[in-house]
Amino acid sequence: MTLTVVGSIAFDAVETPSGSRDRLLGGSAVHFSLASSLLAETRIVGPVGDDFGDAEYAILHRRGVLTDDVEHVPGGKTFFWAGRYHRDINQRDTLQTDLNVFEDFEPKLSEASRAADVLFLANIQPDLQREVREQCERARFVAMDSMNFWIESAHGSLLRTISLADCLLLNDGELEQLTDEPNLTRAARKALELGPRFVIAKQGEYGSALYSRDGGYFGITAYPTADIVEPTGAGDSFAGGLMGFLAAHESEIDEAALRRAMAYGTACASFNVEGFGSERLYELDRAAIDARVAELEQMTRF
Amino acid sequence: MTLTVVGSIAFDAVETPSGSRDRLLGGSAVHFSLASSLLAETRIVGPVGDDFGDAEYAILHRRGVLTDDVEHVPGGKTFFWAGRYHRDINQRDTLQTDLNVFEDFEPKLSEASRAADVLFLANIQPDLQREVREQCERARFVAMDSMNFWIESAHGSLLRTISLADCLLLNDGELEQLTDEPNLTRAARKALELGPRFVIAKQGEYGSALYSRDGGYFGITAYPTADIVEPTGAGDSFAGGLMGFLAAHESEIDEAALRRAMAYGTACASFNVEGFGSERLYELDRAAIDARVAELEQMTRF
Repeated sequence: MTLTVVGSIAFDAVETPSGSRDRLLGGSAVHFSLASSLLAETRIVGPVGDDFGDAEYAILHRRGVLTDDVEHVPGGKTFFWAGRYHRDINQRDTLQTDLNVFEDFEPKLSEASRAADVLFLANIQPDLQREVREQCERARFVAMDSMNFWIESAHGSLLRTISLADCLLLNDGELEQLTDEPNLTRAARKALELGPRFVIAKQGEYGSALYSRDGGYFGITAYPTADIVEPTGAGDSFAGGLMGFLAAHESEIDEAALRRAMAYGTACASFNVEGFGSERLYELDRAAIDARVAELEQMTRF
Repeated sequence: MTLTVVGSIAFDAVETPSGSRDRLLGGSAVHFSLASSLLAETRIVGPVGDDFGDAEYAILHRRGVLTDDVEHVPGGKTFFWAGRYHRDINQRDTLQTDLNVFEDFEPKLSEASRAADVLFLANIQPDLQREVREQCERARFVAMDSMNFWIESAHGSLLRTISLADCLLLNDGELEQLTDEPNLTRAARKALELGPRFVIAKQGEYGSALYSRDGGYFGITAYPTADIVEPTGAGDSFAGGLMGFLAAHESEIDEAALRRAMAYGTACASFNVEGFGSERLYELDRAAIDARVAELEQMTRF
């Protein structure tokens, strides 16, 4: 089945206690695609500037990511983000965010991207997410991310977009902020009332939790990674593994499928944090992901 | 098999957004016993004052807790703690701590308590924990808790006590503090080097994680509780369920036993937070715990 993702394509500059990089291929749609393409053919939608060249395309193409809907804005510069991680790598400061070509982005999907069976709306302005959702009429499963910025500044629009999604993925703190509910279980239940059949709370180093509209719950630990190099994009690669698994899943997308998909997301995120940007995913193959999912199965049984 | 716990016996006063209580039966050894006694006969060791009377003993006796080693200090007052919980119930302020009879506590264990197969050293001064450990020569499995206060103020003594334990239970933040290592996986590995065969990181609302000296890892979600009334003692009732299961476990205490024990701990903690103090555990039976463990099995499978 076909998988389309819309989101940011970026250059990142990061500083960590163990080293720094001033120009990493990044952005939510990129981290997502480099994970999802391990499991299913992925089309990426997003804008880039003149500074986005053959080297960047080559990374995506080597993994079979379809870039026909990467929109080149002549004279523009690619989205840029800079951040500094603390000794506790779960803490970071944003040093710079330049929207650049993203400022005037209006997603125009090709026929092929609109035909997606499975669609992921990465963290972008919720009006744009909704436009893309409406262009993909045939999608049988739509998931979305968002962030605190949109919860605060575009609340009404975000609620409308959420009502059109099958699955909402947010950090647990964002779910609590969205619903004004400090208990995660209650927050997730309130979020389910907004429309989605599934809500997934991303819990960073702890793992993730799935809440289904029919009352189901599933919780999975993060993979215990001793050597976290740089965690940018962990949540996006989690979403990529999740949606890649679902796009390759022939039968109904029910809670059982979501559970297994979350294990794939967990595995992809665990590789992502082992290197700068998504570099660790560049050369990976499906077998490495399957092996880590098998490990996770073993690590969660009692 | 016999289970002994040494720790605090207390009165707690708590304020929460949904109500307050000015005199609850509390203390680490009490929260522990009310959980462990659902699974195995438990002997409780700790001091009380004149204000600790028949009503308090009755609660323990109704659950079969053996109180022969509860030491009554004539003229003394029982340990007292007061705290206030925030709207986010994971946040609290301590308002008052009166050590009272605990100030001069020197554990003197009866022959029966010294004969324990399984011993839990709840969070008390690490010198006292070590004295108890040394009195229980025949214990085949010893686990211990501690807290940030002892990590800071009695570091050397705490390390000596840890070296004598089979299993160290700490909050994840405390493990990171103990080992000066901000990554939990590394922190747990460093803690294993201090002597224990097992380290368990308590992760509050997220669940818990087990690290074994032979490299094994197990992670389990917390039970998704929408109605948290008052969480004091959640960690102690987790330890109680864990150790109660192990005390009733006839065969070797290996990683497989610990994993299942953690599910029992998770179930006990989830009941504990559903009421003030450990009140929710007073009338519970083993079947209720088994049912919740079965739910947890279902909630973690993929």
